[in-house]
Amino acid sequence: MKIPEGFKFSASSCNIKKKDKLDLGLIFLEGKGQAWGVFTKNSVKAAPVIIGKKHIKNPVTRAILVNSGVANACTGEEGLRRAENLLEEVAKHLKIKKEEILPASTGVIGEHLPVEKILPHIPKLIESLSEDKYLDFAQAIMTTDSFPKLVSKQMEEGISILGIAKGAGMIAPNMATMLAFILTDANLPKEELKKMLSKGVSESFNRITVDGDTSTNDTVYFLTSGKKEVRKSEDFYALFLEVLKELAYLIVKDGEGASKVIKICIKGAQSKEEAEKITSSIANSPLVKTAFYGEDPNWGRIFAAMGKSGINFNPEDVEITLNGVLWIQKLNPATEEALLKKELAKPEIELVINLKRGKQKYWMLTCDFTEEYVKINASYRS
Amino acid sequence: MKIPEGFKFSASSCNIKKKDKLDLGLIFLEGKGQAWGVFTKNSVKAAPVIIGKKHIKNPVTRAILVNSGVANACTGEEGLRRAENLLEEVAKHLKIKKEEILPASTGVIGEHLPVEKILPHIPKLIESLSEDKYLDFAQAIMTTDSFPKLVSKQMEEGISILGIAKGAGMIAPNMATMLAFILTDANLPKEELKKMLSKGVSESFNRITVDGDTSTNDTVYFLTSGKKEVRKSEDFYALFLEVLKELAYLIVKDGEGASKVIKICIKGAQSKEEAEKITSSIANSPLVKTAFYGEDPNWGRIFAAMGKSGINFNPEDVEITLNGVLWIQKLNPATEEALLKKELAKPEIELVINLKRGKQKYWMLTCDFTEEYVKINASYRS
Repeated sequence: MKIPEGFKFSASSCNIKKKDKLDLGLIFLEGKGQAWGVFTKNSVKAAPVIIGKKHIKNPVTRAILVNSGVANACTGEEGLRRAENLLEEVAKHLKIKKEEILPASTGVIGEHLPVEKILPHIPKLIESLSEDKYLDFAQAIMTTDSFPKLVSKQMEEGISILGIAKGAGMIAPNMATMLAFILTDANLPKEELKKMLSKGVSESFNRITVDGDTSTNDTVYFLTSGKKEVRKSEDFYALFLEVLKELAYLIVKDGEGASKVIKICIKGAQSKEEAEKITSSIANSPLVKTAFYGEDPNWGRIFAAMGKSGINFNPEDVEITLNGVLWIQKLNPATEEALLKKELAKPEIELVINLKRGKQKYWMLTCDFTEEYVKINASYRS
Repeated sequence: MKIPEGFKFSASSCNIKKKDKLDLGLIFLEGKGQAWGVFTKNSVKAAPVIIGKKHIKNPVTRAILVNSGVANACTGEEGLRRAENLLEEVAKHLKIKKEEILPASTGVIGEHLPVEKILPHIPKLIESLSEDKYLDFAQAIMTTDSFPKLVSKQMEEGISILGIAKGAGMIAPNMATMLAFILTDANLPKEELKKMLSKGVSESFNRITVDGDTSTNDTVYFLTSGKKEVRKSEDFYALFLEVLKELAYLIVKDGEGASKVIKICIKGAQSKEEAEKITSSIANSPLVKTAFYGEDPNWGRIFAAMGKSGINFNPEDVEITLNGVLWIQKLNPATEEALLKKELAKPEIELVINLKRGKQKYWMLTCDFTEEYVKINASYRS
């Protein structure tokens, strides 16, 4: 895995999580970096989200500090004080300003950040910074994730992009307990970072759903060391978007309890909003998601979910294909059930639904809904 | 169970359902009855919903015909033809007009009503009409329901109200695969029926959710034989609302896989819309519902679900009580966890959340989310 120039990584185990696992991660940038971030739209915002929103406005960014185990959300003034306190200590040891650090947290909501447990680990965390500790970092930010999520891409001119993310539950468009960090050595002005990040997120992370629950802590940071010149910014954006899309895919792939990734594509809609509403209604329907889990070609549930959106399409016009196989036409199955069942048994499913009333389209990634999701979430805290 | 004067019931087994179960039910009214109905807001409407919407406008209503097993939804023109055909046959045998029959269906979407299987049973269905077959009728309309749902109430002046319902999955406000039939012998003008039904439904059936999925078939019919005079219409409405609320409660109680009924009450909101949005966001959150299943006092998820509504309340002001026990105050647990766990272990839970920013309130009933819900819905068709 090629790491963009100028970045170092580190991770520690501070016993914030119940078991003896990595739960504190640091990314440090040699030299002056620039950053931007996008955050949850949940009106209840975690302390690190409130602080991160301020810190991204600083002209220089040099580090990202993340803990897992405790979300530091719903912790009021005391939560802000603790987060600030931790950032001050890390800044002091790194010999930088605290505004140059971007914070993020993920874990249980309503519990306080155990700063007293974390502080003794700071010196060693910083000492052990190195270019090859990216996997430790990726592990330190995991909660119910079953695997670390990293994507790396290179451009001809030697520019690298590395994306590291965590997710799994509380995943819904407009961000979820999803953290993603996109690092690059491309030299891009801050204005460009902002534009690319907001456009990129709308095409990737905001199109995934696991359970429709939006978290208090979602954060995507985009950080560049600026070491390498970009020839064509369009080419860079294309690669950047690939990284974002692959990370978004990995988050759904690792959706809590999920056994399948399902891409829902609506086309032939009258407007983009209409396409988006219908897509989201299907992608978030528990009945559709359990039918996919049961590998049951119960297409009526898809129509019911589409109708729930309130949009007045004509059911008789709708054409549905499943992994390229024509499934429904004029409200009748167009293929024998055995063949459909074979497609439904696959771990990757693409559903294309043509409304035949316009030219607009939209897509989203979702996953199936399993007993395992319930098990994981009924016992997450204990 | 006291039956309102003038009504007879009957049920048959026509093998619409896979096993040898009752799946066709008839309510017949001796004399001239009056009716009204409210229906699903899903833009995909089942054939019986389209027909029922027309038939309730008829000045006389004399029967309700319901089948389970097949929803007759997403069946296009052919679905309407089959439903009309069945109504014509039943009307002929009953010697009434088909517009005097209100139809309803529940079951799998996208399959055609097997009229050829049903027709041979019509003569016997009608022959066996009797005042005491209400339980057979209630069983004939069940799908994934685990018990029949009947509520009966009487007024001093001898008026009776009988409510019969089915539900269990695809339950969400604005109606769900929920059928309910409210029968009375009270003499009320049609305008009064309309007003009472729309008001009553907004205070009962539109406040329940099992999975947030709204069905294509939801129907509530209110039918009166008009045999008895009403002294005070307010008193009648109060009793009518009790019947509706008790039926709504039974539907959530029997929610697919549910082990607990949870009443979510928001108070201290700035507007009714605000109260409703926050209530619904909590009641439909899979993470809140799985936490209740796990009997886990994970209050952070409640705040996250509230914030997901987009309403900017102040988390520090929020006060939460659980079955009357003060749970959260100023973002801190106000009671020891052992006591809360004892309350969470109960099958009936009342959560009162005071936002302390206004005087408006709202409530909804929901249930917990269990592995059993997934099991039922992954295999419903097979």
